[in-house]
Amino acid sequence: MPVGNLDLPLMHPVKGVRIGIAEAAIRYKNRRDLAVLEIIHGATVSAVFTQNSYCAAPVLLCRQHLTKATPRYLVINTGNANAGTGSVGMENAQASCAALAKLTQVAAEQVLPFSTGVIGEHLPVDRLVAGLPVALAALNENAWADAASAIMTTDTRPKGASETFEVAGQRYTVTGISKGAGMIRPNMATMLGYVATDVAMAQSVLDALLKSAVNQSFNRITIDGDTSTNDSCVLIATGTAGNAEITRAAGELFEKLEAAVHRVFARLAQLIVRDGEGATKFMTVQVEEGESTDECCDVAYSIAHSPLVKTAFFASDPNWGRIVAAIGNAGLRQLDVSRVRVYLDTVCIVESGGRAPAYTEEQGSAVMKQDEILIRVCLGRGQARDTVYTCDFSYDYVKINADYRS
Amino acid sequence: MPVGNLDLPLMHPVKGVRIGIAEAAIRYKNRRDLAVLEIIHGATVSAVFTQNSYCAAPVLLCRQHLTKATPRYLVINTGNANAGTGSVGMENAQASCAALAKLTQVAAEQVLPFSTGVIGEHLPVDRLVAGLPVALAALNENAWADAASAIMTTDTRPKGASETFEVAGQRYTVTGISKGAGMIRPNMATMLGYVATDVAMAQSVLDALLKSAVNQSFNRITIDGDTSTNDSCVLIATGTAGNAEITRAAGELFEKLEAAVHRVFARLAQLIVRDGEGATKFMTVQVEEGESTDECCDVAYSIAHSPLVKTAFFASDPNWGRIVAAIGNAGLRQLDVSRVRVYLDTVCIVESGGRAPAYTEEQGSAVMKQDEILIRVCLGRGQARDTVYTCDFSYDYVKINADYRS
Repeated sequence: MPVGNLDLPLMHPVKGVRIGIAEAAIRYKNRRDLAVLEIIHGATVSAVFTQNSYCAAPVLLCRQHLTKATPRYLVINTGNANAGTGSVGMENAQASCAALAKLTQVAAEQVLPFSTGVIGEHLPVDRLVAGLPVALAALNENAWADAASAIMTTDTRPKGASETFEVAGQRYTVTGISKGAGMIRPNMATMLGYVATDVAMAQSVLDALLKSAVNQSFNRITIDGDTSTNDSCVLIATGTAGNAEITRAAGELFEKLEAAVHRVFARLAQLIVRDGEGATKFMTVQVEEGESTDECCDVAYSIAHSPLVKTAFFASDPNWGRIVAAIGNAGLRQLDVSRVRVYLDTVCIVESGGRAPAYTEEQGSAVMKQDEILIRVCLGRGQARDTVYTCDFSYDYVKINADYRS
Repeated sequence: MPVGNLDLPLMHPVKGVRIGIAEAAIRYKNRRDLAVLEIIHGATVSAVFTQNSYCAAPVLLCRQHLTKATPRYLVINTGNANAGTGSVGMENAQASCAALAKLTQVAAEQVLPFSTGVIGEHLPVDRLVAGLPVALAALNENAWADAASAIMTTDTRPKGASETFEVAGQRYTVTGISKGAGMIRPNMATMLGYVATDVAMAQSVLDALLKSAVNQSFNRITIDGDTSTNDSCVLIATGTAGNAEITRAAGELFEKLEAAVHRVFARLAQLIVRDGEGATKFMTVQVEEGESTDECCDVAYSIAHSPLVKTAFFASDPNWGRIVAAIGNAGLRQLDVSRVRVYLDTVCIVESGGRAPAYTEEQGSAVMKQDEILIRVCLGRGQARDTVYTCDFSYDYVKINADYRS
């Protein structure tokens, strides 16, 4: 059961991006499992990928292609991750790009491939290639919602976010989609995320914007602590809005764009947690008063990854002992636990190394009954802060992951 | 359901150690929840404790007392961890030691306190103290099995190991007990472990022996990756066997003793995994051909902590994609995945970056049907190796941890 409202908003088209969908029977028949995304000539494109050593063939090939050319097409399949597939996997990824390049009259290096689904099985490249003409014939600017559905795996809901804003009477758009529900602890990117804007931007500005947005969104969520082999995130600036190209991170347009991109990324990342496998609760773990953002993240992830914390939240049990054990388990040097305070929403539950004197179980239980809970930790030793988003750990997480692929 | 045979063996007494049990109603009535362990004057005692920053009051007090005196008594309660209890917790631990010291005419510093159970509630020190005379009256050399029961929390079975060996016609004994089933990723020690031998040994030799034994046993197991606030492990050498004190780590007696201690520790640690909360499978994760034991451990723990790997093993699904994703997720620099091989028992499932050509799902499924499975990873880049023990992740893990304390 997803937590909160995951409905797709109105997905504003981004001029310069067209999307086509097909049913290619990659893993199952009669489902949309192939998406082609066309990017207008002259756009800038930035991308980040998983840090997993066993990264998938398409991730390796994306990295190669990005050093050689600006992408004109993305080809995305679900149902098969093309990961753990050795040299055959690379050949299949190359074949997919070559086939799309031939159909669209671009160089193979101008195609980026993305795959998601089961690991360790060979991509049915013939079926994928057979689906490409269908997808190309369907290309249009209003297929973002369809694309959000076509890239799902164990996701129960398509995930999208879209905003427009105005600067000096000109309207600009930021629209994106994401997918992912398990094997989620992105490191540099999420399972799959694609965001486009019509703002014209220089490559260096776009790269920096993608990095900052990812670091506050996809790099701050975890469902099970497992970093995927296929995490990929792409930010496209088509430049079709007609503004003078942004060449530095300043000015009203950049600032409004930055805010919109950060909000869209944050929403796309949090949607993944809200739809986390078996999730019944959405937890925001906010750690403040640290010596560095790194140590704030260490504490936040120690809490967010603790199976004991996650099962306690599933049970709506304000078992703060497990939270303090997880804080103590984060490896911080010389942490003075007598200075640490822990809050559930606004209720102080821990201070001076133990239960807060005014805290009652009734207060804790009232907070725990909610679907969305803030765990706030004040470390009492600095000014840094950071926030991680996660979900609880339920019977259904085990069920989904014990049944999947069997 | 524990995995394998967890029956207590014949628990050989260790001359110089007497144990007494009582029902102190620490948390529940009519259960044995208090143990006093008496150590003969002249023994040497070594201990290691959790590295969790939120370590419990008894752990803090044990560390203080060990700097001041050689212990004569251990007082151990279950039902309450006296952790996350601030200054009141420390006063309660001190009061327990003082009461036992008074009854036994030793200094308070000669008593070490240990607590296990729920975190964050105050120790009912009056009830604990009231139980001490009962425990003292019961002191005897043959209560190791009773003690194993008296220190249980969510354990379903008491845990013990015992060996004797002979050197030059003299018989020596090593006997120990442990407890723990959840919040298990010991770091320097386990939840609670107590081992004694009658061999006479100098403090420095005993300290080194404890450290090496713990590093190959309690420091190599994980159930849920959560390091407890109360991990403590004690090794006692009573010296009652009459040998000339061992002052260096050499000679036949030391070597036989070292082997016996390592076996007893390994058994006590693995018993904890076999009785892991909800465990249905016992998994040995053996990583070889690493550049260092540290990186072997990193890979082994990345596999052993992955909820996706653990749920796949629960489902008896040879989902090796999750294993390679976990290997890739261990943070090793410059890992050449084309050199990595992965085996389930003796079946090679992964090589050259993908599924081994000769591997069939039938082979994998046959291994996965077993209760005890070896996951062997060869990194192909060095001579180092290390091994970690863990269990799978089942519905019952969630059930136990969602229901406990609620």
